[in-house]
Amino acid sequence: MEVSIKHSAKLLSQANHIVLTAHIHPDGDALGSMLALYASLSAQGKNVRMLLDDEVPRAFRFLADWKKIEQPQSAMPETDLLVVLDSSDLERIGKVKDVVTAPILNIDHHISNLKFAEYWYIDSQVAATGELIFKLLKEMNAAITSGMATALFMAIATDCGFFRFANTSAETLKLASELVALGAKPHTISEYLDAKPLAVIKALPKVLETLEIIEGGQNGKIAVLTLSQEILADFKDDTEGFINYPRNIEGIEIAIMFKEADTHSVRVSLRSKMVDVSQLALAFGGGGHARAAGCTVTETLGRAKTLIIDAAKQLLVTGLGVDDAKRDN
Amino acid sequence: MEVSIKHSAKLLSQANHIVLTAHIHPDGDALGSMLALYASLSAQGKNVRMLLDDEVPRAFRFLADWKKIEQPQSAMPETDLLVVLDSSDLERIGKVKDVVTAPILNIDHHISNLKFAEYWYIDSQVAATGELIFKLLKEMNAAITSGMATALFMAIATDCGFFRFANTSAETLKLASELVALGAKPHTISEYLDAKPLAVIKALPKVLETLEIIEGGQNGKIAVLTLSQEILADFKDDTEGFINYPRNIEGIEIAIMFKEADTHSVRVSLRSKMVDVSQLALAFGGGGHARAAGCTVTETLGRAKTLIIDAAKQLLVTGLGVDDAKRDN
Repeated sequence: MEVSIKHSAKLLSQANHIVLTAHIHPDGDALGSMLALYASLSAQGKNVRMLLDDEVPRAFRFLADWKKIEQPQSAMPETDLLVVLDSSDLERIGKVKDVVTAPILNIDHHISNLKFAEYWYIDSQVAATGELIFKLLKEMNAAITSGMATALFMAIATDCGFFRFANTSAETLKLASELVALGAKPHTISEYLDAKPLAVIKALPKVLETLEIIEGGQNGKIAVLTLSQEILADFKDDTEGFINYPRNIEGIEIAIMFKEADTHSVRVSLRSKMVDVSQLALAFGGGGHARAAGCTVTETLGRAKTLIIDAAKQLLVTGLGVDDAKRDN
Repeated sequence: MEVSIKHSAKLLSQANHIVLTAHIHPDGDALGSMLALYASLSAQGKNVRMLLDDEVPRAFRFLADWKKIEQPQSAMPETDLLVVLDSSDLERIGKVKDVVTAPILNIDHHISNLKFAEYWYIDSQVAATGELIFKLLKEMNAAITSGMATALFMAIATDCGFFRFANTSAETLKLASELVALGAKPHTISEYLDAKPLAVIKALPKVLETLEIIEGGQNGKIAVLTLSQEILADFKDDTEGFINYPRNIEGIEIAIMFKEADTHSVRVSLRSKMVDVSQLALAFGGGGHARAAGCTVTETLGRAKTLIIDAAKQLLVTGLGVDDAKRDN
């Protein structure tokens, strides 16, 4: 059932043994939202654990309590409430669903949310789940430490491209302002997020050499980066921000990055300026937002490229999701 | 004499023939501040002109009224007030000072400001001169259109690295929030600012090949990019953001980018995480902020590199300006 923020706060206050989780391939919003909520509930004396079906990516290992995030192994002890953050369906939490038996409270901002939980608090108007957690903590009258403010600022900032994307509202910036007043330090956070090993910068030319530009008709072009396993070996999967190279080229409407996970699995990142690429991602079992989405295609790299690029061309022809109101100025 | 924001508003309201200007090599803050103030004063029925001793860089040619910016040619007609924006000394406005005869109102946020004007309104605590112009327009009870809000949002966002730098305060984000409510669209602005010609992306590997890492002792390393005239030919001077490659490498304290303007003139950009590089820039006749500064060295590229890198090493040894309070978290 749909619940209000007040009801969500009540569910949390009534529970004593709480497990928090978020989606696989966790991003800043998933981790920041989970860590802030964890810190607050722990300070309130709850028995809280964090489970994630993935390692914490290197870039986020500056946040308080990140080492307390566990990976799902054996069945968890009795749990009153499983809080599923920033995830639009149950598959997105991976093996966590197999080890926890409890009613689920789903807090999310994805428009593609399947409303799979016992309780859901979903607001697809906000830029990040972090915005919702911040509001939730206020609703609970929780003390917000600088560590929580840092986690929440990071959650919000990473999901709106540091206040660059179309989802950046006046409210997004107002909440960010409040978080800075509470102790979040944008420059420290961005230094951690932006830090790259020297080897990554040195290997960047190899990535840029894979750039392809594909004509897409009157609605704009498609730009593609292809990261084979060979190229990825230099990056240890730290490819954050690479999608911006094709995305920022003049005249490009859809940017695509292919990452070869193994010989029959390819991770696909999609960005656009006008068309709704979440529809394309959904068609391949993925999800996301109108202008930033992704999916995994279980095919060879070559075959995955053909499939996705054809679908992208099709999307450009139909112009599906083009919203001129969001394009004005 | 030092003036308050109220006094600044009064000086503007008393003047009828006003010339606005800003510093050479204009950045987003210089242009956005000038264009917003121009739009407001024009709407108030003033006779206003904008002079700039440089062309408007390509990236900013989406802002309303940018085509009305003139370059200084012959002596200007009688002027009541010359408003010098975002400039710490009179040399920074180039030839504009030779063609306008009028009392000067200087509105600026550089800590290195020389207080050269008849009237100065300086606040080095704010991230951008755009913050001061926004406050000034409020003080004047001026109507703020979406075009002005766009110019001011861009002014603020570009001077704080889109809310990433140490100068991003709670107030900075609050003002940005208000500007979005007034009609500024962060995603449209950032799309214009981030757009790169395909040729620039294709030529980027050549730039990255010039990367040098120099040991600097216990306070961190120095990373250097060198853009010779040959390399610059591919970029038409659109090197915005390149300094972030050396800046973001793990363990780098000072990042330097050299741009060969001609055989005996080199533009130097400096970035740091802790030490005060504005001191280094000042020593070579430049200026800026503690963590982002620049200067022009009238030497060959090789000689300029030797001079600046030696000074940077020295700065790392003395640790001048290291402020641990700004490094906590």
